Amino acid sequence: MQLPKGFRFAGVSAGIKSRAGAKDVALIVSDTPCTAAGVYTTNQIVAAPVVLSRSRTPSSKLSGIVVNSGNANACTGLQGDLDAAEMTRLAAASIPATPESQAQDFIVMSTGIIGRKLPMTKIRSGIEQAAGCLGDTQAHFLNAVDGIMTTDAFRKTAHRSVWSSRGSHSMVGMCKGAGMIGPKMATMLAIVVTDAPLEATQAQRLLQAAANRSFNCISVEGHMSTNDSLVLLAQAPSEKEPTLDDADLAIFDAELTELCIELAKKIPDDGEGATHLLEICVRGANTQADADAIARSIALSNLVKTAITGGDPNWGRIVSAAGYAGVPIHPKRTALRINNLPLFDAGEPLDFDAKQVSESIRASKLTMIELDVGLGPGTATHWTTDLNTEYVRFNSEYTT
Amino acid sequence: MQLPKGFRFAGVSAGIKSRAGAKDVALIVSDTPCTAAGVYTTNQIVAAPVVLSRSRTPSSKLSGIVVNSGNANACTGLQGDLDAAEMTRLAAASIPATPESQAQDFIVMSTGIIGRKLPMTKIRSGIEQAAGCLGDTQAHFLNAVDGIMTTDAFRKTAHRSVWSSRGSHSMVGMCKGAGMIGPKMATMLAIVVTDAPLEATQAQRLLQAAANRSFNCISVEGHMSTNDSLVLLAQAPSEKEPTLDDADLAIFDAELTELCIELAKKIPDDGEGATHLLEICVRGANTQADADAIARSIALSNLVKTAITGGDPNWGRIVSAAGYAGVPIHPKRTALRINNLPLFDAGEPLDFDAKQVSESIRASKLTMIELDVGLGPGTATHWTTDLNTEYVRFNSEYTT
Repeated sequence: MQLPKGFRFAGVSAGIKSRAGAKDVALIVSDTPCTAAGVYTTNQIVAAPVVLSRSRTPSSKLSGIVVNSGNANACTGLQGDLDAAEMTRLAAASIPATPESQAQDFIVMSTGIIGRKLPMTKIRSGIEQAAGCLGDTQAHFLNAVDGIMTTDAFRKTAHRSVWSSRGSHSMVGMCKGAGMIGPKMATMLAIVVTDAPLEATQAQRLLQAAANRSFNCISVEGHMSTNDSLVLLAQAPSEKEPTLDDADLAIFDAELTELCIELAKKIPDDGEGATHLLEICVRGANTQADADAIARSIALSNLVKTAITGGDPNWGRIVSAAGYAGVPIHPKRTALRINNLPLFDAGEPLDFDAKQVSESIRASKLTMIELDVGLGPGTATHWTTDLNTEYVRFNSEYTT
Repeated sequence: MQLPKGFRFAGVSAGIKSRAGAKDVALIVSDTPCTAAGVYTTNQIVAAPVVLSRSRTPSSKLSGIVVNSGNANACTGLQGDLDAAEMTRLAAASIPATPESQAQDFIVMSTGIIGRKLPMTKIRSGIEQAAGCLGDTQAHFLNAVDGIMTTDAFRKTAHRSVWSSRGSHSMVGMCKGAGMIGPKMATMLAIVVTDAPLEATQAQRLLQAAANRSFNCISVEGHMSTNDSLVLLAQAPSEKEPTLDDADLAIFDAELTELCIELAKKIPDDGEGATHLLEICVRGANTQADADAIARSIALSNLVKTAITGGDPNWGRIVSAAGYAGVPIHPKRTALRINNLPLFDAGEPLDFDAKQVSESIRASKLTMIELDVGLGPGTATHWTTDLNTEYVRFNSEYTT
């Protein structure tokens, strides 16, 4: 993995998480002012770091990102706003290599429990410690990945080389999930860093489009977090390296979307007890937005998820979930396949071998649900987990 | 319980359900043409009986309702449409006491598994058998109640005496749930019968308003069914007994809403393994529709439901679910209480005794969640279950 030129990474343990030595503060710093774009939760109950970072992206002169895990700094009132701002001040002050950077050139992300005030003494020493050990090796990158994780069972990273007419640029990404395995709500954070030169408005447009095909198409239980943040850092264009032209932008766009999908799928894939990753492909909707609504409705149905858990080809649950998505669908044009086996077509139930469908679900971690609604060109793919007793046990664990 | 005058009831076993002797065909017949109103699922994948009955209500000359349980007649193609129509023809032909009745004066309801064709031989003999044992006693009424049930653990009935300026009228209701305990999707059916005289348009308006405060405010897992039907039968006004005047209508309206709420709450209350009934009261929204959206968002959150299962006062899950309801809410005006204990107020987390909140959740089947969003006059109350491992086990049970 080739890290993008001009960025340094750190992750340290500041004692915010209860597990001794667990990394919980991360820094990502650009050696020169960089381009930044951000896509954030649309929850109206929004954490202080999101309010602050949202106001600072897109940017053409960002210095970096400071992250803490173990505490979401959400529903923390005025003190939360002050603490988020202080985190960016501390980050700016602690980076001597970028003397021009000021607090407003940093953004901040937090993830963890809602409704508890940040332990600022620990955060202060954590940021200082992280600033002292920034570096540009893979080990430094992985320290930062560890620093943003909460209940994740494995690191979630992805990388791409983007070959444009200028030669090769590097793109690396990290993210953390996921509600599935934690007794506390886990929030989704994702950071993508590239040394490809992009204008801020280009970066924002590309990131929003990629998010719509990746991070906005995954769910564990559909509970939108107060802290979800996806940020793209890119090299700021210069006279020597101007921004990518349209042809190269199209290449970059495709790679960014692929990388975001690769990262996003790791979130529902990561769940202790999750026995299936469901890939829900909807075709034939009037528009992409309609396809998206149908895929989401199926993905969020507990009855669909529990049927897959049990290897039960109870396909009426899938078709009926599509029917309440609030967009046009007609049974007589609709066809359903599970793992390539046809179950329903043109309003008629098909004779199928229930045992064969059941065995195909049980034989693989991935279950493919394909619904063609036969109306138009709209397509969408969503990914989610099944719903099993482990999920319930973890999320109802007594934590006081 | 005083049954409404002029109606007869029957419920019989036709062998549609696998359990021997389980009642699975019900008939409700009016001695003279009656008023009927209906509120149905808004799912676009809609069962054949719903399509047919929807086209026949409101009505000022209905003869009755024929119901089968054990098979939903949904996603059954053209044959399903023919079978639903035949059920109403059979009902009409089997009732010699109402010779003027024709097939189009009957409506039909079905509930049970999706995607299997109706066993019409059993249905035919069931309807004939039911027509032969219609009666107006409480035992006949309870036979009909048994005939509409699927996986319900107990009968769901309610009754009211409506005292108007004309004297007393009777109103009785029955309903069946619920996704919770069945390995198959269970659908909601409800029937209310009254001898109060109402015009069809009045009945339709009152029933829709009552549904919005009752059956539209409950959920188990939020999976909208293909078969949900709520029907009101009332006496047709005559010269001797004209329709209720406005003052009496207001009294009837209040009683109907109360009866529907009483029936509706029994659905989430009935769940093997369900340890809590959650009552979610939202106040202070801009409008009733906004309050409804917020209450629904909280009711459908698996993270809220599992927290209550575990007696975990993890209130961030409740406030954040309110935040993604898609309607205005500002944390700094929002206040949350669980079982009368304040946890969050005006954007600030409160110091509270977590052990006390937890014990209050564990001590009672009913958990009260009160959210005041401090913006306007809109209020709404929703009811749902917690989410526990029993739910998952039942719904992922291998059924092929």
